[in-house]
Amino acid sequence: MSSLHQNAVIFDGLVISNFTRQVLEDMHSGGITAANCTCSIWEGFEPTMRNVARWMRSFEENSDIILQVHSTADILKAKAEGKVGIVLGWQNTSGYGDVLDYVPLFARLGVRVVQLTYNTANSVGSGCYESADRGLTDYGRDLVAAMNAAGVLVDLSHVARDTARDAIAASTKPVSYTHCAPAGLKTHPRNKSDEELKLIADKGGFVGVTMFPAFLARGKGSTVDDYIEAVEYTINLIGEEQVGLGTDLTQEQPPEFFTWINRDKGDGRKLVDFGEALELGGFRRSSEFPSITAAMERRGWKADRIERVLGQNWLRVLREVWGA
Amino acid sequence: MSSLHQNAVIFDGLVISNFTRQVLEDMHSGGITAANCTCSIWEGFEPTMRNVARWMRSFEENSDIILQVHSTADILKAKAEGKVGIVLGWQNTSGYGDVLDYVPLFARLGVRVVQLTYNTANSVGSGCYESADRGLTDYGRDLVAAMNAAGVLVDLSHVARDTARDAIAASTKPVSYTHCAPAGLKTHPRNKSDEELKLIADKGGFVGVTMFPAFLARGKGSTVDDYIEAVEYTINLIGEEQVGLGTDLTQEQPPEFFTWINRDKGDGRKLVDFGEALELGGFRRSSEFPSITAAMERRGWKADRIERVLGQNWLRVLREVWGA
Repeated sequence: MSSLHQNAVIFDGLVISNFTRQVLEDMHSGGITAANCTCSIWEGFEPTMRNVARWMRSFEENSDIILQVHSTADILKAKAEGKVGIVLGWQNTSGYGDVLDYVPLFARLGVRVVQLTYNTANSVGSGCYESADRGLTDYGRDLVAAMNAAGVLVDLSHVARDTARDAIAASTKPVSYTHCAPAGLKTHPRNKSDEELKLIADKGGFVGVTMFPAFLARGKGSTVDDYIEAVEYTINLIGEEQVGLGTDLTQEQPPEFFTWINRDKGDGRKLVDFGEALELGGFRRSSEFPSITAAMERRGWKADRIERVLGQNWLRVLREVWGA
Repeated sequence: MSSLHQNAVIFDGLVISNFTRQVLEDMHSGGITAANCTCSIWEGFEPTMRNVARWMRSFEENSDIILQVHSTADILKAKAEGKVGIVLGWQNTSGYGDVLDYVPLFARLGVRVVQLTYNTANSVGSGCYESADRGLTDYGRDLVAAMNAAGVLVDLSHVARDTARDAIAASTKPVSYTHCAPAGLKTHPRNKSDEELKLIADKGGFVGVTMFPAFLARGKGSTVDDYIEAVEYTINLIGEEQVGLGTDLTQEQPPEFFTWINRDKGDGRKLVDFGEALELGGFRRSSEFPSITAAMERRGWKADRIERVLGQNWLRVLREVWGA
């Protein structure tokens, strides 16, 4: 592990692992300062609240290596204490159960990054695998306003193009793709075109680049160097100040999990076939995070670019949206 | 009360009253054979299930005057026993909580008429007060198929035009507007154009005509004769075999109820201003149902048309959709 990696604030913009003690230890040993950890995908209000409650217990039980993040000051505190800061995040708005008042309530509980919809259509808008993109609904507009007011970062990674465009226009705060890859390197319904990446950046938004091999140019055989190529492509497009990492790691998730996330609402029709392109070569665990920094150094990036992309950029946009 | 009224099967295609003992007694004294009674509007799964459970208790407590309807045979049984048959119905699909398996489950509990969306957009499609009509979603298509399979009548009364068109095309069974008024007599976002009424009828569907004064030509001053005019207009357009009644009565509902139904999801933005046009002149209670039959007779309708519109048409379409 390089001293640069050791000293940097490192933020993973999206992790969707099964957060066992082992996975938390891997995040810790990988030198991750803080991460946006998914705790709701298809769940409605009550099961989502139960997931949040389980995290509360985990914060107690694993307080030697993790702490909950409510502000960017907590991220810096995690760095100072050598712990991993956990931001609770959702990949869908189903957890709100269509109740606007739940936005500040869940924000109080630490849910500070929320994706508008996961892959298909909901009451807010359309997802990237929906057959027709219908744009942001009236309720979606009200929800974005509530998220702006409560300091919740809007995530558009799995959102369909026109719905994302409407949300970018509606939001008074920067919005994000926490985990996406550029369509300029690989055509895929989940990938973002140069135009889409420029649009979100022009409005002050943020792009976390994902390492999911199915979204990278070389597909199944992709390595961490292919990942850094995708990050660099994005930087060349929108500059190095609005780009970060969002691995989309699914460590220790059982096969049922993948079946569940890949069916509409969890048990409806199957949405997409990824084949075997599920894991980056040589990168299956959060403990392997130092290899990302090593690949950046190998590619000849200067230290300040590396520090920005590893975490400083994330810190800045989160401070802007969260207000602290 | 005319002998025609006394002997007819009378079905109210939509009632959204506060179903106290007094209201049930009024339905009973009004000679109503059976009615589609709303028990979910904005509620999600759990509160909807609670409403259904409350009805189970009411069926016990009021078994001297009501019985639950699971089939059209139960409607005829209600007629024979001089009781009011209760069909449980929803004006939204939020009660399913995006779980397709809940469609047959709730059908087993007696929920046999369900509207796809109430006024705005949800995961299924768009409502009539949504600023943009986005059509039926992919999940909406799956849900209509599940409703067809479980024998649940699709209701499109508050659904937006294109979403309704898609649902009419997607459904393998007749669908319905349980309570609507013709736009040919009064322009209103909730009213249905001649084209829309013909489309649903051409596909074997059903139109229940509502008496809500804001949707009738004369607005606030409307009487039961204006209501029958709207029914007759519909008959002249699509024939007398696919038309019935759907009063939309809101007897004994408190002011908070109207505030709640008129805000998106119950507590979001206000949707529409009806002014004071809430109650038909001389018709505020289900006990006044005989005045409907009297107005039909006054208008010179023949007995078989009156019997069809009062209930025989409803019986036929329900048998076709429910399978029994």
